[in-house]
Amino acid sequence: MADPQREEGSVLDIKFDSDGLVPAIVQDHQSGEILMMGWMNEAALKQTIETKKATFYSRSRQKMWVKGESSGHIQEVVEARTDCDQDVVVLKCISHGPCCHVGYKSCFYRRITDPTTLETVESKVFDPNDVYK
Amino acid sequence: MADPQREEGSVLDIKFDSDGLVPAIVQDHQSGEILMMGWMNEAALKQTIETKKATFYSRSRQKMWVKGESSGHIQEVVEARTDCDQDVVVLKCISHGPCCHVGYKSCFYRRITDPTTLETVESKVFDPNDVYK
Repeated sequence: MADPQREEGSVLDIKFDSDGLVPAIVQDHQSGEILMMGWMNEAALKQTIETKKATFYSRSRQKMWVKGESSGHIQEVVEARTDCDQDVVVLKCISHGPCCHVGYKSCFYRRITDPTTLETVESKVFDPNDVYK
Repeated sequence: MADPQREEGSVLDIKFDSDGLVPAIVQDHQSGEILMMGWMNEAALKQTIETKKATFYSRSRQKMWVKGESSGHIQEVVEARTDCDQDVVVLKCISHGPCCHVGYKSCFYRRITDPTTLETVESKVFDPNDVYK
């Protein structure tokens, strides 16, 4: 059902899911490349907006984490947006280093070639063993 | 924990969530603009790859839907990608019309100015009353 206030209003009222989380897409501010998607709880979203450093909530570790706290590869938020029904966040960022822990700039380094197969279409830009010690 | 086969292999093995869904981000193939995020079940993902029309699973209506089936504004998939841990999909698309049912090209037409406030920063490109009848 349409909800005009949620869709067209100026009040931030994120619809967190039943776990209290919202997906947050990190996009390179200049190139538009999608770098990763993480999850935020309300505190991580608030901290991201206030500090301008992309901050997420780890579902596996059950705690907040600042992107780049281990690697130094922080994502500096230039602009945050939300969508019509306020259940997704986009962060337009300046990348201070590659985004993916596997060694690629973006986590989306493989294309889906058919319903069973992937093909790697990007090249690694760092060796994770040098960064995560 | 790192899972080399999942992260670096060539087998598509999407990690669907406990509801059997995966988030799918629609991105304009040429401009890089993020247009929307929807959810897919396994059948919607397969249909998307096979038909090259972005197809989702509606959590509220509990059924599959082809983007544009009402409006005609289909999203033609040029390339699909997944991320390191295969729990997000990106669809690089040619937009056959605007993406957002509110009337904007992208669903992300508002920026978050502070932890409580939104500002609309895009202009509507169509009147939903003309399209959804």
